[in-house]
Order: sequence, then structure tokens, then C-alpha cells
Amino acid sequence: MEKKNTVNFDNSAGTHPKPESVRQAVAYAMRELGGNPGRGGHQLSMAAAERIYAVRKSAAEFFGAEIENAAFTPNCTYALNMAIKGLMQFGGHIIISGWEHNSASRPVYALTRNNGVKCSVCEIYPDDVQRTIEGIRRLIRRDTLCVCCMAASNVTGRIMPYHEIGELCRQRGIAFVCDCAQAAGVLPVSIKDGISFICTSGQKGLYGPTGTGLLISSGEFALSTIIEGGTGATSGELTQTPHMPEKLESGTLNTAGLIGLGAGIDFVKKHGIGNIRRHEQSLCKMFEDGLKKLGAEVYDIGCDRVPIVAFNLKGRTSEETASALNKGGFALRGGMHCAALAHESLGTGRRGAVRFSPSAFNSAGQVSKLLRYIGNSLTDFMPDQ
Amino acid sequence: MEKKNTVNFDNSAGTHPKPESVRQAVAYAMRELGGNPGRGGHQLSMAAAERIYAVRKSAAEFFGAEIENAAFTPNCTYALNMAIKGLMQFGGHIIISGWEHNSASRPVYALTRNNGVKCSVCEIYPDDVQRTIEGIRRLIRRDTLCVCCMAASNVTGRIMPYHEIGELCRQRGIAFVCDCAQAAGVLPVSIKDGISFICTSGQKGLYGPTGTGLLISSGEFALSTIIEGGTGATSGELTQTPHMPEKLESGTLNTAGLIGLGAGIDFVKKHGIGNIRRHEQSLCKMFEDGLKKLGAEVYDIGCDRVPIVAFNLKGRTSEETASALNKGGFALRGGMHCAALAHESLGTGRRGAVRFSPSAFNSAGQVSKLLRYIGNSLTDFMPDQ
Repeated sequence: MEKKNTVNFDNSAGTHPKPESVRQAVAYAMRELGGNPGRGGHQLSMAAAERIYAVRKSAAEFFGAEIENAAFTPNCTYALNMAIKGLMQFGGHIIISGWEHNSASRPVYALTRNNGVKCSVCEIYPDDVQRTIEGIRRLIRRDTLCVCCMAASNVTGRIMPYHEIGELCRQRGIAFVCDCAQAAGVLPVSIKDGISFICTSGQKGLYGPTGTGLLISSGEFALSTIIEGGTGATSGELTQTPHMPEKLESGTLNTAGLIGLGAGIDFVKKHGIGNIRRHEQSLCKMFEDGLKKLGAEVYDIGCDRVPIVAFNLKGRTSEETASALNKGGFALRGGMHCAALAHESLGTGRRGAVRFSPSAFNSAGQVSKLLRYIGNSLTDFMPDQ
Repeated sequence: MEKKNTVNFDNSAGTHPKPESVRQAVAYAMRELGGNPGRGGHQLSMAAAERIYAVRKSAAEFFGAEIENAAFTPNCTYALNMAIKGLMQFGGHIIISGWEHNSASRPVYALTRNNGVKCSVCEIYPDDVQRTIEGIRRLIRRDTLCVCCMAASNVTGRIMPYHEIGELCRQRGIAFVCDCAQAAGVLPVSIKDGISFICTSGQKGLYGPTGTGLLISSGEFALSTIIEGGTGATSGELTQTPHMPEKLESGTLNTAGLIGLGAGIDFVKKHGIGNIRRHEQSLCKMFEDGLKKLGAEVYDIGCDRVPIVAFNLKGRTSEETASALNKGGFALRGGMHCAALAHESLGTGRRGAVRFSPSAFNSAGQVSKLLRYIGNSLTDFMPDQ
């Protein structure tokens, strides 16, 4: 069903294609690493555990954390649920930004309904960090346990003032949960930025397979668990293993996915975050300039952004535009991007937006073709030049 | 680090090797199915969604369920947490068997500590189904919401009277959560057996990759969620998507793993549960007979069992035996198998047991070699013949 020649400009949902090294690593794991890591002391189990350990070490280093504070999760959503609920499930006050993905806003909403948690939503003012931070500071109460703000928006790419939020949280002894799904691999986000919990997916800027995610902790805040089970450690006890990272890794890990994630992180390290971002940013600039000439509405222009361009064409819903582009062989995502709050903050509401998100594998030639296709095939909806 | 020639007799922790078709399916997904299923209407996303749908359909059919009631989970532990907590997180009484894996007993224990849940442990009498069922019946209270009992023990393979428990639960309007991690693929467990929630892992008898699991529902009991987030559906709402299966599938799915799981289920369907079980059972019989001749202690002899043999050699801890076997190139698991309760019920306590669990890929020749190795190399611990 998939068209071989579809160009993927929806890399914010998952980079595709994957590096050859990632595919090879997954194939290797499927062939050789069939032992259950941490379950059993035999060669097969140990071989898998050793390779998983190497990935953990690499991921921890990548985000400036201690190895025991790097937990693997099934995806970023699970990491966010584990961090937010692990801090908040017994009550308290949380501050979340008005830009959060449903992976953060929905668990918070559930906590307000079921666990007596109170929530305040903070505004993020583009180009006014001081005002943003002052706004958050004013929302802090005596029972505030956590600020939850993404590093960069999955809708427009806008980079949030996470360094400054981290600093504020450290000053006040509050945990800072940061959704880095769009930042990891293009911004040098680190535990050293003052983030208490980095939550990210493996399949986006880290070029790993889907089914992988990371919950990286600074080690300053202990999380209660929302999932318990076998961890391969302290098996004789009915209480969950208290040691990190096993405490947060119940059940069998996704070995092949994680070995692939390790290769993905190696790919990013080899090419360099700065180079990857510069390449993708140049494609975004080219696309944005072209869109402006075509009279499209582009969001968060002028904001410091990760490589994403959110736009709408006049007279079309975002889904209609995405659907028309798909016919031309270009994969872009329309709609709400699982981020109701963000579209409310952005003022795009139910219309949503079309999202262009390149990866290291996209080229200027592909962007030219996309612009040409929009210019030629969607001109009926374009204003007079 | 892994020895190429290590023979895997620890398939209860995860079948290895995987069928060639499974490895091919994973490789295909890594190469071609990079779109995020359910996120976006473009070709790449749709192609992944279509293939995932086919796996869901196959898995639902395999367990006698409606397709919308087959949810994918990261592993069996998550499925059990979602089922048990989804039923019990707001309180009530649960009955669990004294054989449960930590993946069931630990979340239940957490509920008793944090959510006011009351728990009773029921005994499973081998060869006395009536007594077992009467025992459970006596434990049922007015606030009993759930009985949780595995279909077969991960320690000894003992098959539990799940049909009869299912019947009792149906009569009383109580949910029956059944851990089928050791049964799926060797016993024809089905929603039609009276099970409300079948929880299983993908990487054991279903021959899929790790990082995959299933939560199959009869549709009779609605679960509250313990993880919320983006589902690709009802994106504009802060409340979790109410529709199954999306409600239980927050965040991006493990596409390659699930496509592999689909191929694994196809492998099982093609060869037939009955044939696979007969083959593995014959290897177990052979091993058990050999062990008895060597004077080893074998557990749950005479019980109807899935293909597992649990044993100990005199004068050695289970870990020592497993370690000695590993040196000979045989992967078997010693210790507690993440099942403290079961070893308590079995009377093996902290000593645990060594577990032999063959797959469709093991041969009688391999079992002969294993027995010979035990006889020759571990004779110092063997009694006089």
C-alpha cells in the first residue's frame, strides 16, 4: 500500500528512513540477542544484558546523566506518565505549559480528576523569557511539586525557555519534567540544564525504532511507580524493586528496539547535533520562504525553533492540504498533532495546521519539488501573486 | 559475548531463535513501515496502520475476541497492570492465586498499599479442581471485583483450572484476569473460556519480538486507564480517548515489533498449537525421565503442564546448577523466575528452581546432549546409581 516514492516530511512523528546502521542493529538483535536481559545468568541472557547496558550508558552520557538514572520506556508518553504520576499521584499542585502534547496534558488532567491534583497552566510568551518565567514564578504555591514544560513544541517547533525554567525549579526545589521528544537530537538538552526528568521518544531525532523511549532522571527526585512487576532483581519481594533503573522497567525490555536506538544515538553523535540541526534548519528556511511567496500562513515565524514549519493554505483545512500533498507523494501531517492545548495557545483551534518536519535524510531537491507541487497543484487555493 | 552454540532451553523467558519469517517481517517494517500508524493520513502512516490492523485482526481471532478488544501493550507486565489497575484502582477486593508472577502480584500489592484495595490469595490444588474452585468461591465477597489467576505457571508449567474459574466468575459477574504468558501458543486459551482479560507477552509462545504484549478483552468490563496520552484519535480532547483499543494504546506503537508478532502468530497458526505443544511436551517427557534417573528433584510431576520442567539437583542451589549448565553451553534459568509467591506455594522458597523450557526449534538430540552433560559433569552432586 505504501508508495515507494513518498517523501517523508513527517519526521516529527518518527524519522523515516532509518540509518542503515539502525536497521542492521535491529536485525542483529533479532538474530543473536534472543536472551531475556536481566533474566537468567546464562550466556544468551548475559549477552543481551551487556548490549542493553551499552545502550543505557550511551543514552545516559548523551543527556548528561548517571547511567543508573537512564530508564528505558516503551515510548515518550509512558516516560511522561511515569514522571508526572510518579511525582504527583498522591496529590499536590502542578504547573504545565499551554503548549503540552496530550502525552503530558492528558495524564495531568486524569490526575486532577482522580487524584486530587491541582493544575495551573502557564503561558509561554515568544521572545519574552522574563515574562514567561515571572508568570511561572507567580503560579508557584506551597504545594507545587512539579513544572511540566516541553523543550520544543511538536506543533510549530518553538523552543521553550527550558534553561530558565530549570533554574527557577532548582531555586525552588521543584521538579522539572521536560518533554524532549522534538528536541532530542537537534538541541543539546541535558540534565545539566536543570531538568529533573528528560522524557523522550527513541524514534524521532534519535533515529531509533518505534517502541522505544527514555526517562532520564537527575537523581534528585524519587518517583513512585505506576507499573510494577518482574524486574529480574529482588525477585523474592512483593514490593517493587527499589533500585533504579529497574524500578521503572517492569517486564521484558524491547531488546531489538533498544539495540536499534543505541545505533540511532551513535548516528546522531557521529554526525553531530549541530550539523543535523543546521541541515534541517536550512530546509525549513527554504520551505518557509517558499511558502511565504505562495501566500501561506506560517506559524511562529521569528521564534527560535527546532526544524519544524507549521502552516496552513488559505481556503483549506489542514487535513485537506495534507491530503492533497499526500496525493503528490509528500507525507506531511495535518490536524491537531495530539496537542489540543497548543492549538488553543496558537489560535489555530480545531483547524489545526500542516506540519513540515525534515530529517537528516531529506534534501533541498525534495523541498524544491514540494514547493513546486504546492505552487502548481494547489494554486486554485492560492491568492493572486 | 554470546556463544554461537549455546542451546536455548529458556524459551519461557522468550523464544529464541525466532522463525526466519519473524525476522524478515521486522526487517521489512524497519525498512518500509516508517510512518507513525494512526498519526496522519498520508501514505506512510496509512501503510503502517494497515499492517498493524492486520496484526490486530489476527491476534483478536487467535484469542476469540472482537478486533476492537485487542490492545497492544509493551509486554505482558503492562497488560496485567492495565487490566488489574484498570479494574481496581478505585478500590475493591481482588482474589489472586498463590502462583502469580510478580507482574500480577506486585501491582496488586501496590494497590493494597496505595489504593485501599483488599486482596485474598487462593490456593490451587493440583488434581483437585473442585476444591480449588470451592476455595475461590468462599473468598468472594460483596466487593470482589476481580479474580486474577494465570493459565499456566511460569515456574513449573502447571496448568490452572482457568475454564472453571472463568465459569465461576461469569456466574458471579466478576472480572477474570488471566496471565497467559506461558499458555499462549501452546494451549488454546480464548476469551470464550470465560476469561475477561487475556494478558500475554508477544515474545514467548507467540514467537514475536520482545517489547510486544497483548491485552485482549471480552468487552464485558470497561477499564479505567493508568496511562493517558496521544492516541491519534479525539486529539482535541483533554480526556483520554474513550474508544477501544486506542484508549489503552497511548503514544507511538512498536511497529516493527508488532509486525514481527503478526508473523509469529502466523507461524503458530501454520504449525498448529497442538503440534507445537506435542513436540515440546515430548522433549519435556524425555528430559524429565532422564532427570529422574539422575536422581534430580522434579516439581509438579503428574500435573497437567505446559512444556516446562522445573527441577533442582541435590547439593546445589538452582543458580549453581544453571551456572554449571551455562558453562556446558545450555541456557536454563535458575532462581525465582520473578515469582516469589509461586516458590512459596511450591515449597522451594528462596532456593528457587532450574527451569527447562523448550520451543518448537529444540530437538531431541539437544535434550540428549543436555542430559549427558548433566550425567557426566554434574555427577559429583548426583547420588549413587
